[in-house]
Amino acid sequence: MIGIDKNITLAYGNGGRLMHELIDMLRSKFSNKILNELSDAAEFKVNSTRLAFSTDSFVVKPLFFPGGDIGKLAVCGTVNDISMKGATPLFISLAFIIEEGLEFSILERITSSIKQSAAKAGVLVVTGDVKVVEKGAADKIFINTAGIGVIKKYSLGTKAKPDDVIIINGPIAEHGMAILNARENLGFLSTIKSDCRNLNFEVKRCLKASKNISVMRDPTRGGLATSLNEIAYSSNLGIEVYEKSIPVRANVRKLCDVLGFDPMYVANEGKFICFVKEKDAMKVKHAIGKGTRIIGKVTSSHKGEVYLKTQIGASRILPMLEADQLPRIC
Amino acid sequence: MIGIDKNITLAYGNGGRLMHELIDMLRSKFSNKILNELSDAAEFKVNSTRLAFSTDSFVVKPLFFPGGDIGKLAVCGTVNDISMKGATPLFISLAFIIEEGLEFSILERITSSIKQSAAKAGVLVVTGDVKVVEKGAADKIFINTAGIGVIKKYSLGTKAKPDDVIIINGPIAEHGMAILNARENLGFLSTIKSDCRNLNFEVKRCLKASKNISVMRDPTRGGLATSLNEIAYSSNLGIEVYEKSIPVRANVRKLCDVLGFDPMYVANEGKFICFVKEKDAMKVKHAIGKGTRIIGKVTSSHKGEVYLKTQIGASRILPMLEADQLPRIC
Repeated sequence: MIGIDKNITLAYGNGGRLMHELIDMLRSKFSNKILNELSDAAEFKVNSTRLAFSTDSFVVKPLFFPGGDIGKLAVCGTVNDISMKGATPLFISLAFIIEEGLEFSILERITSSIKQSAAKAGVLVVTGDVKVVEKGAADKIFINTAGIGVIKKYSLGTKAKPDDVIIINGPIAEHGMAILNARENLGFLSTIKSDCRNLNFEVKRCLKASKNISVMRDPTRGGLATSLNEIAYSSNLGIEVYEKSIPVRANVRKLCDVLGFDPMYVANEGKFICFVKEKDAMKVKHAIGKGTRIIGKVTSSHKGEVYLKTQIGASRILPMLEADQLPRIC
Repeated sequence: MIGIDKNITLAYGNGGRLMHELIDMLRSKFSNKILNELSDAAEFKVNSTRLAFSTDSFVVKPLFFPGGDIGKLAVCGTVNDISMKGATPLFISLAFIIEEGLEFSILERITSSIKQSAAKAGVLVVTGDVKVVEKGAADKIFINTAGIGVIKKYSLGTKAKPDDVIIINGPIAEHGMAILNARENLGFLSTIKSDCRNLNFEVKRCLKASKNISVMRDPTRGGLATSLNEIAYSSNLGIEVYEKSIPVRANVRKLCDVLGFDPMYVANEGKFICFVKEKDAMKVKHAIGKGTRIIGKVTSSHKGEVYLKTQIGASRILPMLEADQLPRIC
């Protein structure tokens, strides 16, 4: 815990409670109205133009994994953070930190993947940077992207509304388990693919389908449980989710069971949750398409807490991620 | 050389010819009109608002050095890249890659420095990211910043004009030599301080003083000689600089001499060159203030090349940085 720990441990980067404490500490340091919004992307006006701005560094290991690679992830991560604000991503920056000795062929594969993902999302890479550090001073390659989006009509906030319905666009825990499977060479269940992809067009369809969306969030580090907790906390409302409605593919569930992971805490890179007024829930579900599920609702009781209704009808509190699950998954 | 080398070496990050080849390769990969401008910052319009956007990662070693630290550098680097476009920097993002085990006290010192530099430049940190990697996978801490600025009236291009006069705002080679001195614990000439600082207000004064500025550039990696070569190349014009007019402090020159460095190729972090029509040169010089020098001019001969008029009256070509000088200076 900050103030007790003298040194930063891996747990400060895993998306859980310690990371939130560290980010809160940093946020309070730079405190300003825009930063304090607690959003994935900053929102501000320049002249009369409303913009969204976001950044992420990518340190994923291994660099290539079923369903994606560090390059694809670097585009999708920033595109998705901007999209969650209700903004249309337009431009991204691209900065490499390369360890001396990296093969050009690897850089070539990664940049091809970036190019392809950026084209798919309809964003332009407009500026960049390259740094090279000596052998042993980095692990192959790290990538940072920052992105700018335009907010056309209205932007999404960080607060859910009472009685909002919660929708997810597909099965959870695929990215984290694909990374783990690839990294550890587990050599089984190789059918697990990362869900890494751009969400901007799905988000656009949602915003077209309903004017009553209050929050969207992509549950990356810390998984679905952590994102739900963040929203319950910032809304000062309760959240109730139904275990049986939360989609998890059989192969992902099996690997989670074998290794003792709870899919609710495993990272996603192509999923988002959408909080919408009940009357528009089916419209939004339909707009997103196949695989979309209603997984819960917002309540006025249990303020700041998330409850899970289990398969057997019991109800238990679903806390924020506490212990380290997986380092370097993004 | 790309295509011959199979692996990336430190020379690909040092600001010289190989780095330019690598950046050209990447640029051609993502080719678009904005990126192809070859500028330190991208320029584009969103609605009717003209913006500048830039990014840099910082891997400087050591983290703290006389005159600055990685945090100050991370703010100044991005603020200055945006300023060189003639834009007013407004917002920055801040992304940390931290090696497990970093002391909180170091992070605290760095963030305090970022806060102070951002306040001085008048920019807000509005979004950020933290990643933690295991021990040995990074070297203490790397920082990425990206920044957004607004272009109010006109922006600066990348092309000088024939007969432009070249102005510099002070002595060169201080940053690179301060880093080297601190890193190698040379223990002498400890009076050398990095020139690391924000240039946005100086640039603003220049733009107020003259409407006839064609290019500005901050000669960071690769030093003054490399920046001059870049501008000669993109303008397809010649450049002539006078050795005796180029300011180098005595202690910096001494350390360069002892270690065999040419100050023309050593990095600066608080210097900029300004190309302006001759009739406005004195106005701009006066607007910047004390220490400002006229160091050369643009010629229609020797297209794409930089010539140095030496102290003894001879003239020699000043090529782009070729061999590695100093890794990890920013």
